[in-house]
Amino acid sequence: MSERFYLTHPPRDRQAVLEGDEARHLARVLRAAVGDSVTLFDGTGKAWEARVATLGRDRVALDLVIDLPAAPAPAVPVTIAVALPKGDRQKWMVEKLTELGVARLVPLVTSRGVAEATESARGRLERGVIEACKQCGRDTLMAIGAAESILSLVGGLPAGTRGLVADPGGSPLESALSGSGAATTAVVVLVGPEGGFTPEEIATAEGAGCVRVSLGPHILRIETAAIAAAARLA
Amino acid sequence: MSERFYLTHPPRDRQAVLEGDEARHLARVLRAAVGDSVTLFDGTGKAWEARVATLGRDRVALDLVIDLPAAPAPAVPVTIAVALPKGDRQKWMVEKLTELGVARLVPLVTSRGVAEATESARGRLERGVIEACKQCGRDTLMAIGAAESILSLVGGLPAGTRGLVADPGGSPLESALSGSGAATTAVVVLVGPEGGFTPEEIATAEGAGCVRVSLGPHILRIETAAIAAAARLA
Repeated sequence: MSERFYLTHPPRDRQAVLEGDEARHLARVLRAAVGDSVTLFDGTGKAWEARVATLGRDRVALDLVIDLPAAPAPAVPVTIAVALPKGDRQKWMVEKLTELGVARLVPLVTSRGVAEATESARGRLERGVIEACKQCGRDTLMAIGAAESILSLVGGLPAGTRGLVADPGGSPLESALSGSGAATTAVVVLVGPEGGFTPEEIATAEGAGCVRVSLGPHILRIETAAIAAAARLA
Repeated sequence: MSERFYLTHPPRDRQAVLEGDEARHLARVLRAAVGDSVTLFDGTGKAWEARVATLGRDRVALDLVIDLPAAPAPAVPVTIAVALPKGDRQKWMVEKLTELGVARLVPLVTSRGVAEATESARGRLERGVIEACKQCGRDTLMAIGAAESILSLVGGLPAGTRGLVADPGGSPLESALSGSGAATTAVVVLVGPEGGFTPEEIATAEGAGCVRVSLGPHILRIETAAIAAAARLA
């Protein structure tokens, strides 16, 4: 795969423009020349093979050459709603969830959670998603939702959407999924903070129809639980 | 769960001794007092509730109070054989594979691999396993094997052991596992370096009966592939 670049503006008349860090990386780090081929993606699933047309210090224009085939959307999109861990563990988690094909990450507001989903934190998460998409060949960004409480997230799930709560006392994941009558069209997994959800939070989730699921016999760190759920569902 | 400590020497006459870092952590960081309760585990699956008997600067003696029930061994032990990633990614991977219940990690020697499994690297991996076991409540250490080539690892797999090679062109993991005639008693998963296995390495693994399996549509980093396989198999 050739080097991949993320387009923040849609192409016009079969021309695309890279600016800022993306342009500097192509022009100055990779020392691209006019005529070089790269892959562009816009984060909504569209991707192109393109050729460098003009090179500036902070701006590179490219001609689109080939529309690359779109990857099929996941049959059952997975949302991971998680009480964000801190620092490197947060960064790592976002990278892994993106690689594993999670559709959406929602920062979950919980009683025992420690990391706040501030605007700057969300910006950092979004940059992490873009970097991971460039690296792993994913053309559709993982969406970063606004911070939500359990009730606002699972209070009105549409029919077909399965809500799951990661909980050491829950049923094995596979048995929880197979018990459904209606076809599952989407999955939302709630992952709690260090120390777990409070009994009230579990009750809220179960009251909204969520099923408690266990991800194995050990006490998983936040990011391990999120990644394990993603690997098994996304 | 009370704080967990790792015993390097087996207990004698219902007494156990912690030395070095474990003793200092208990005596100086946690400021334990005589009579305090802690959990001890020996890494082979045995664990005890114990009470502090005598406290020294670098040596703590404890009386075993209760033999804790042993966790059942995994029905199908999983070995992850992986071309080690570097630095933090290696450390992270070991933590996650331990949490997820992988039985054994084998550093895989490959043509394109970069990180060598030196003795000091193995010591570092083993310390990572102990730390993760303390944290996640696992009583049996994940074994760290000696570095091996693909041929030496999968050249003579016993009947019942399924060999899998992570490969973007392989079959979905579940279909590869369901196709087996004999009962599967163990699984070995080979995970290649950045840049992947060479065609010769894939041929060696397939020649030894391994099946190529895909872990999803994106190009996974080494540690993501290893963790995703562990989450789905261990």
